[in-house]
Amino acid sequence: MASQPSRPSGRRPDQPREIRLTRDYTRHAEGSVLVEFGDTKVLCNASVEAGVPRWLRGKGQGWITAEYGMLPRATHTRGGREAARGKQGGRTLEIQRLIGRSLRAAVNLKKLGEFTVTVDCDVIQADGGTRTASITGGCVALVDAIRYLQRKKLIKGDPFVQLISSVSVGLYKGVPVVDLDYPEDSGAETDMNVVMAESGGLIEVQGTAEAGVFSREQLNAMLELAENAGAQLFEHQREALGIRR
Amino acid sequence: MASQPSRPSGRRPDQPREIRLTRDYTRHAEGSVLVEFGDTKVLCNASVEAGVPRWLRGKGQGWITAEYGMLPRATHTRGGREAARGKQGGRTLEIQRLIGRSLRAAVNLKKLGEFTVTVDCDVIQADGGTRTASITGGCVALVDAIRYLQRKKLIKGDPFVQLISSVSVGLYKGVPVVDLDYPEDSGAETDMNVVMAESGGLIEVQGTAEAGVFSREQLNAMLELAENAGAQLFEHQREALGIRR
Amino acid sequence: MASQPSRPSGRRPDQPREIRLTRDYTRHAEGSVLVEFGDTKVLCNASVEAGVPRWLRGKGQGWITAEYGMLPRATHTRGGREAARGKQGGRTLEIQRLIGRSLRAAVNLKKLGEFTVTVDCDVIQADGGTRTASITGGCVALVDAIRYLQRKKLIKGDPFVQLISSVSVGLYKGVPVVDLDYPEDSGAETDMNVVMAESGGLIEVQGTAEAGVFSREQLNAMLELAENAGAQLFEHQREALGIRR
Amino acid sequence: MASQPSRPSGRRPDQPREIRLTRDYTRHAEGSVLVEFGDTKVLCNASVEAGVPRWLRGKGQGWITAEYGMLPRATHTRGGREAARGKQGGRTLEIQRLIGRSLRAAVNLKKLGEFTVTVDCDVIQADGGTRTASITGGCVALVDAIRYLQRKKLIKGDPFVQLISSVSVGLYKGVPVVDLDYPEDSGAETDMNVVMAESGGLIEVQGTAEAGVFSREQLNAMLELAENAGAQLFEHQREALGIRR
Amino acid sequence: MASQPSRPSGRRPDQPREIRLTRDYTRHAEGSVLVEFGDTKVLCNASVEAGVPRWLRGKGQGWITAEYGMLPRATHTRGGREAARGKQGGRTLEIQRLIGRSLRAAVNLKKLGEFTVTVDCDVIQADGGTRTASITGGCVALVDAIRYLQRKKLIKGDPFVQLISSVSVGLYKGVPVVDLDYPEDSGAETDMNVVMAESGGLIEVQGTAEAGVFSREQLNAMLELAENAGAQLFEHQREALGIRR
Amino acid sequence: MASQPSRPSGRRPDQPREIRLTRDYTRHAEGSVLVEFGDTKVLCNASVEAGVPRWLRGKGQGWITAEYGMLPRATHTRGGREAARGKQGGRTLEIQRLIGRSLRAAVNLKKLGEFTVTVDCDVIQADGGTRTASITGGCVALVDAIRYLQRKKLIKGDPFVQLISSVSVGLYKGVPVVDLDYPEDSGAETDMNVVMAESGGLIEVQGTAEAGVFSREQLNAMLELAENAGAQLFEHQREALGIRR
Repeated sequence: MASQPSRPSGRRPDQPREIRLTRDYTRHAEGSVLVEFGDTKVLCNASVEAGVPRWLRGKGQGWITAEYGMLPRATHTRGGREAARGKQGGRTLEIQRLIGRSLRAAVNLKKLGEFTVTVDCDVIQADGGTRTASITGGCVALVDAIRYLQRKKLIKGDPFVQLISSVSVGLYKGVPVVDLDYPEDSGAETDMNVVMAESGGLIEVQGTAEAGVFSREQLNAMLELAENAGAQLFEHQREALGIRR
Repeated sequence: MASQPSRPSGRRPDQPREIRLTRDYTRHAEGSVLVEFGDTKVLCNASVEAGVPRWLRGKGQGWITAEYGMLPRATHTRGGREAARGKQGGRTLEIQRLIGRSLRAAVNLKKLGEFTVTVDCDVIQADGGTRTASITGGCVALVDAIRYLQRKKLIKGDPFVQLISSVSVGLYKGVPVVDLDYPEDSGAETDMNVVMAESGGLIEVQGTAEAGVFSREQLNAMLELAENAGAQLFEHQREALGIRR
Repeated sequence: MASQPSRPSGRRPDQPREIRLTRDYTRHAEGSVLVEFGDTKVLCNASVEAGVPRWLRGKGQGWITAEYGMLPRATHTRGGREAARGKQGGRTLEIQRLIGRSLRAAVNLKKLGEFTVTVDCDVIQADGGTRTASITGGCVALVDAIRYLQRKKLIKGDPFVQLISSVSVGLYKGVPVVDLDYPEDSGAETDMNVVMAESGGLIEVQGTAEAGVFSREQLNAMLELAENAGAQLFEHQREALGIRR
Repeated sequence: MASQPSRPSGRRPDQPREIRLTRDYTRHAEGSVLVEFGDTKVLCNASVEAGVPRWLRGKGQGWITAEYGMLPRATHTRGGREAARGKQGGRTLEIQRLIGRSLRAAVNLKKLGEFTVTVDCDVIQADGGTRTASITGGCVALVDAIRYLQRKKLIKGDPFVQLISSVSVGLYKGVPVVDLDYPEDSGAETDMNVVMAESGGLIEVQGTAEAGVFSREQLNAMLELAENAGAQLFEHQREALGIRR
Repeated sequence: MASQPSRPSGRRPDQPREIRLTRDYTRHAEGSVLVEFGDTKVLCNASVEAGVPRWLRGKGQGWITAEYGMLPRATHTRGGREAARGKQGGRTLEIQRLIGRSLRAAVNLKKLGEFTVTVDCDVIQADGGTRTASITGGCVALVDAIRYLQRKKLIKGDPFVQLISSVSVGLYKGVPVVDLDYPEDSGAETDMNVVMAESGGLIEVQGTAEAGVFSREQLNAMLELAENAGAQLFEHQREALGIRR
Repeated sequence: MASQPSRPSGRRPDQPREIRLTRDYTRHAEGSVLVEFGDTKVLCNASVEAGVPRWLRGKGQGWITAEYGMLPRATHTRGGREAARGKQGGRTLEIQRLIGRSLRAAVNLKKLGEFTVTVDCDVIQADGGTRTASITGGCVALVDAIRYLQRKKLIKGDPFVQLISSVSVGLYKGVPVVDLDYPEDSGAETDMNVVMAESGGLIEVQGTAEAGVFSREQLNAMLELAENAGAQLFEHQREALGIRR
């Protein structure tokens, strides 16, 4: 291993960045979590609203959705403000669809009743992995929003099913690594986002070869790293939420 | 196998639909291919334009991009026309980003010179798998566009690197199946789109659990099906293009 | 006549292009017709939906509307995708208003009941005359949609009134000609679109001098050509629909 | 004629409304004309700007274009403000395309040099015929803008070719009538807008059957009325501009 | 005072421009007033509609709102048409919010009942002070709209509370002046819009230093000028409306 | 004073909330300041970009502009995301115009050279006074951006002129109070935002009567409070920036 190409951050290939989950970060949202994956900082606010979208009305179930945004100067150079440009870009829409889909796997929508929980993930500072941090932090905010509904006796049962977390993996200089930061992300040959369920098993796998191709063996090596990091992420989430396993 | 739940179409789990690739389907585009995966029909037109997007200018390379659309009544019930609604939806943007990314893996952009090839994939009739058909047919149209550039002596070398094809796989009633049609697609527990390179190896893997989770073993079983179907797709592409292996 | 300037296509001044009407071109729409005026090919899909626009509700009548679009590479050079630009252009809106207005003349809206038929006319390949082909083919698709309503016993009476067809005429090198293709259309001094009723009589006349002016005599000579071509178009429509006169 | 159905306004079938053309109505525009066709009042401002649209650059010619709008309460009930809705409707785009096309027939664009004249036609009060009034008044404003260019010695020759005017005709209770006001316009069986050149001859004819059809004979009877009214309109324009015939 | 820097118009510092208020300027609106502050001309049309915005429904009160627009050539050089650009600019939105807020102070919304009055202020010709003229003229149109409701017995009581008027003041070459025209407005060090109630007292004060700062003393000197001009504006409004004090 | 109506927060009428200015809050922006006025928290990021807007090019001066946004759940109930709605609302545009105008008073644009500084003010948590906090914090971020330009030797002189700060004042239950929080803001009879220069003097005054009117005396009493609070704000800014007076 002595000859292994080192990661820009000096981390080992299987070493995620330092993770922090700060609950009650702002005071209005029913769930408000600042999630930090190293220098990536995302504010995840879960808002509860009575009612569901039109196409779900009368079906006796709830809905979980997500929106994603980046502050214009979350990145190295200033990006245009999407509100000023008049539309959300394709990358934004793709990410918020992924977050929403992932978080719905944490909840039994039937038991949620006719409530909508919207999880806003706004990137305060970006250093790679904003979508995986959003899912991981957004799940904690979502749990707080569900607890709010229970505390206020707005719902009876417990719609919470399981924790969901996410981490990126990739091939960097030919080596599988976990939780890529921006310098790695922009140089990786393959980049993959993995969404995992606490109970084990995969919710979503999105792998892209940026240069060349990747093999089934490399895919499995990367998934191995993701699952190991996932175990740590679930531990962080349980600790933040005061859940004993 | 007698007890295996049958697919709605009566196909075997590893059996893709009938594939047809019709070149020169319309007469204006430099590459024009109608691709059919069973009842899914997509018109892939590759257009050559001199010049590249602003952010690539002066770098001595070309660009491949894709746009995707559905005719309003390509589907069972009429969908609104995106031009009339005033924006492309998130699903559309996500798909056209995937197609463009996949097709760029077929080409050496440096050797393409300062030309842009835009591959328009317009769905005439939808029955599941429109994005995988678009990639598979779009690649053939792209090759025709490159041949046009060579025939007109607008470029010297050969920017074509390898064929790219794509197929969907999924878990349907717990069984891994390939090339899902609409009835399967809407009922599958897991849905995965796989983009493959002719030389072997994966370009993109996007798997989503619609209900429950999927395991690493199931992922690998699905990839096995995709690779086998990919071999047939490459054969169809080569035959359509008159390429001998 | 020996000195008459010849048409680029070699057609006689009063000779329309070959017309083809293919019903059931796609399988989801209640009426689906591919119409070809020579190399101009338009897919006309008629979709039936229960209900009418808000401003018609409760009046006990139905509605016919049309939308028009061009695939980006239907033309010699690629045109921008209207969905990507975020709005339909003035030409598109003008054409789809014309198609809708014309097709409403084919139907007794009172007898249609509270149903809306939307006729989508999407140009697969353009060579002049896309709006006249759309009206002619759209009318056949509309008849199929009405038959669907009758077959499903969703309406009782017969809202169909009469066939509507359309053809372009113009002055090309000073000579009145019918059914202009693209080379003529772009060089004509006057261009006129005529919409006709099977029972005789005009539904819409839109004539524009592109260079110079046109006289009442020339207008009448052009209308003469249009009416003769109209007789042929109605015959094609009846044959396609299996209507005996 | 005693039994002839009377027009709501009491006018004879061949009698246009009172026409007024007031030049220099506002003080900033190079040409500013308030045109009144009875109670229809349109402010036509012609603005001169150096340069031409991108697609005309370097061709040594000028450009004439038009924009059309209605003040929200120009009509009986308030219409939404197009700027607030975020787009111009199909009717607006169709009308401004017609005005621009018509006014270009008044000018030799080669002699105009690389200037653009934009004619804004804003309806202050509507009572039918706003597009025909816009063309008639807009032509006078355009002539003033050309005179401005000559007076300032910005161009050498005279790009003015001929006056253009426009009037509506229609079938009202089966009788051909000229210059329809709102009550007639909303009840007419056929409505037709005719654009004419001072030298004789037609520039544009747009006739629409709102109910039933119209015959070639009726078309010609309407055109007869239009041409007679056109002679009066040209006289009004010449008088307003101080042109002796 | 001999050495006082003269105003471009030759007016005294405390002298507003000639004010004209012409009622019934167009015939469809329930209140229609052309207001002129010198060469600034704004058409203010007040439209009555039954019902209130969604968020006010069922509260038993009415609503007053305003929209503002400039004809493209109301100004020295042509400004783009907001409807064509697809959105109202920040300046437009800011002004129409101010007008609406100001006019609501003229009315007891409870007594108005569930009616909405929309006051459209469209600038025909601009020479500085378009927003203050809009408020002053819009208030007269609003009173006419209220009188219409009373005359038609659609409401019982009198929702009219008091007249509202507005004027601009500023520091021009260091001297406080009232009712700035365009040459002053574009050169002033400070520009302030003041909205006043007939009963005395301020409704809105918006002062901006364009260069340097302004002191409390200068602010008060400007307000003194505004109040004196306000007295004249209220007199004009009462006279136009036939109100005896 | 014993009978004075108490403020909801228990503060004295002349007592602003606790102010905090945290520099270097994020790491990418040239100036990054979190400003807190009590529970109102705004992240102000100043970004330096070479070049100026088109209309300023070649004039040898720089430009300062601002953009403003609220995270969707910065408020008590979730507000729609402006990027998703496709446009910035009138309130947003009004506020960002005010911030930009105010901050330009802090800088000599000539000495800035052809650089643009964009100050993004994004509200993390709202409790009244977001625009005044944005100006106060944005000014500190702007100074850091200017220092960056000097440190990198991109400019020679010192374009910084003076500090700018802002605070709200109002009439709450008839009493003039300073720095209104949300409960006061939503109940105040008059609300006024005051922008002040460090050198003394006013930059902008925007006062609005929400109910009734306000008098000149009340205006002056409110300005007195604003100026006193301003002195404290400038002291906070100097301390944060390490400026000795």
